[in-house]
Amino acid sequence: MSAVLVVGSLAYDSVKTPSGKAEKSLGGSANYFSLAASLFSRVRVVGVVGEDYSEQDRQILLKREVDLTGLQTVAGKTFHWEGTYENNLNEAVTLKTELNVFAQFNPTLPEDYRDSAYVFLANIDPTLQLQVLSQVKKPVFVGMDSMNFWIGSKQSELREVLKKVDIVFMNDAEAKMLTQTSNTITAIKKTAELGPKYVVIKKGEYGATLYSQKYGFYQIPALPVENVVDPTGAGDSFAGGFFGTLASRLNADQIPEWNDLKAATLAGTVMSSQTIQDFSMKALIKVDQNLFEGQLVQLKQMIH
Amino acid sequence: MSAVLVVGSLAYDSVKTPSGKAEKSLGGSANYFSLAASLFSRVRVVGVVGEDYSEQDRQILLKREVDLTGLQTVAGKTFHWEGTYENNLNEAVTLKTELNVFAQFNPTLPEDYRDSAYVFLANIDPTLQLQVLSQVKKPVFVGMDSMNFWIGSKQSELREVLKKVDIVFMNDAEAKMLTQTSNTITAIKKTAELGPKYVVIKKGEYGATLYSQKYGFYQIPALPVENVVDPTGAGDSFAGGFFGTLASRLNADQIPEWNDLKAATLAGTVMSSQTIQDFSMKALIKVDQNLFEGQLVQLKQMIH
Repeated sequence: MSAVLVVGSLAYDSVKTPSGKAEKSLGGSANYFSLAASLFSRVRVVGVVGEDYSEQDRQILLKREVDLTGLQTVAGKTFHWEGTYENNLNEAVTLKTELNVFAQFNPTLPEDYRDSAYVFLANIDPTLQLQVLSQVKKPVFVGMDSMNFWIGSKQSELREVLKKVDIVFMNDAEAKMLTQTSNTITAIKKTAELGPKYVVIKKGEYGATLYSQKYGFYQIPALPVENVVDPTGAGDSFAGGFFGTLASRLNADQIPEWNDLKAATLAGTVMSSQTIQDFSMKALIKVDQNLFEGQLVQLKQMIH
Repeated sequence: MSAVLVVGSLAYDSVKTPSGKAEKSLGGSANYFSLAASLFSRVRVVGVVGEDYSEQDRQILLKREVDLTGLQTVAGKTFHWEGTYENNLNEAVTLKTELNVFAQFNPTLPEDYRDSAYVFLANIDPTLQLQVLSQVKKPVFVGMDSMNFWIGSKQSELREVLKKVDIVFMNDAEAKMLTQTSNTITAIKKTAELGPKYVVIKKGEYGATLYSQKYGFYQIPALPVENVVDPTGAGDSFAGGFFGTLASRLNADQIPEWNDLKAATLAGTVMSSQTIQDFSMKALIKVDQNLFEGQLVQLKQMIH
């Protein structure tokens, strides 16, 4: 059992979906990731919030023993994202992004974070991802997420990060955009050539693909969900379940093997399938060990 | 080992894809289905062609010992379909459909076809599907395919067919259109309520879902294909591999069980992944037992 360090956003989101809407409710990649990962392992958060960030929202992670000593609180307002999902629930349309306190974010790791073995760089400016990673002394296994915005605006920095990570999480459109190809399989292989030993492609209702240059493809379907309320945070919950599972299975000096990564992919799939069943973090927060195990059994039955 | 009866089209297609084009080349649902199924079992074809249908094209099925006594040759031209695939290789755009000899098609089964146990009603007018099925004395397991055109124009006849079949093959857009819902899982369940005990949803590069009211979901990914040349016939090749496998595993009086259906889904997945790698039936024709077994092993490795 080791700990996972995550850097990402803690946010108040306003989201509209075909099921309804949620105004200024808790969100952000580091929040979803940490809540999901904390079911399996210890988590250390690096991030920034404004003075409006409520104690109640902070308690959600604290109750799960997530370490928030790396969470800065500064003058100003918390990061705010406003988005909508139309008929295609796999794709968010961003209506507004207010960086607020994130605009001046200068991540500094508390001393006792620096020995972290497992590191996840959630979807933020690749320059910040690099800044955080450079402060970790001897990372054993590093993952990253990104999005079309950074692929378009900061691709050279993004490629720097890719060279330093072991695994990257993307959706198929992002991988195709990054590698300038129209075939998903080719895009996955080309992405792996940019540095990461492993690539995870998240495909929403179609599940996820884990790829390794050495071991090839491992494919996992999504759990069947009839009531998709709000897809926000699905990818971060996936990564949280994934990294939490790795950290729970391994000691700080152990490098994950193919079997660990396959188990992590299953866990990530379960966590993301829960998140989407309600707005904000309301469904994810209800996932306990029992619910998780039950869903994992159901997932395994669907593929064996 | 039993035989499979199929009714469907034998056609000359003109297809354009990002990889190039093929003019008036061999196609049609019954052709793809029969060629795929004949790798595993005996096949009996019900269909119609014009005087322009070449002996060479007929030989493709005859060499595989497919029974063509139910194939009528009448005055006029063979069915012609013209289509194109743009960036989305999962979706064909029909440019032209010339029914030709199919317009007057009046399917009559040869006497020795009437005891067929396994029957596949490929994507044709549901009235014709019913006409063929009514001539089979004691069908044991019946499958059907359809498409948006018939869902839109002949839905009541289509629902009649659905009541009489054991399994239906559709893509997710068709299932959603038929059941008037936007969620794939709900669409699958509602489709099963219309009659068929089993539903197969073909999702192109995302694989296939097999559903049973009794056993739930079984999910299979697609094999990774980097060079998708022409998706035409993928669904019919899938159904051919599926039904051929069922017929090869079972005697004429045996009803397939869940394990048979899962094995059939794997075989269908392999066959469709081969078809799409060249225009017309050029790739499918090269699939022998060796190639099939090798791909099946690769598919199983991706999910276990």
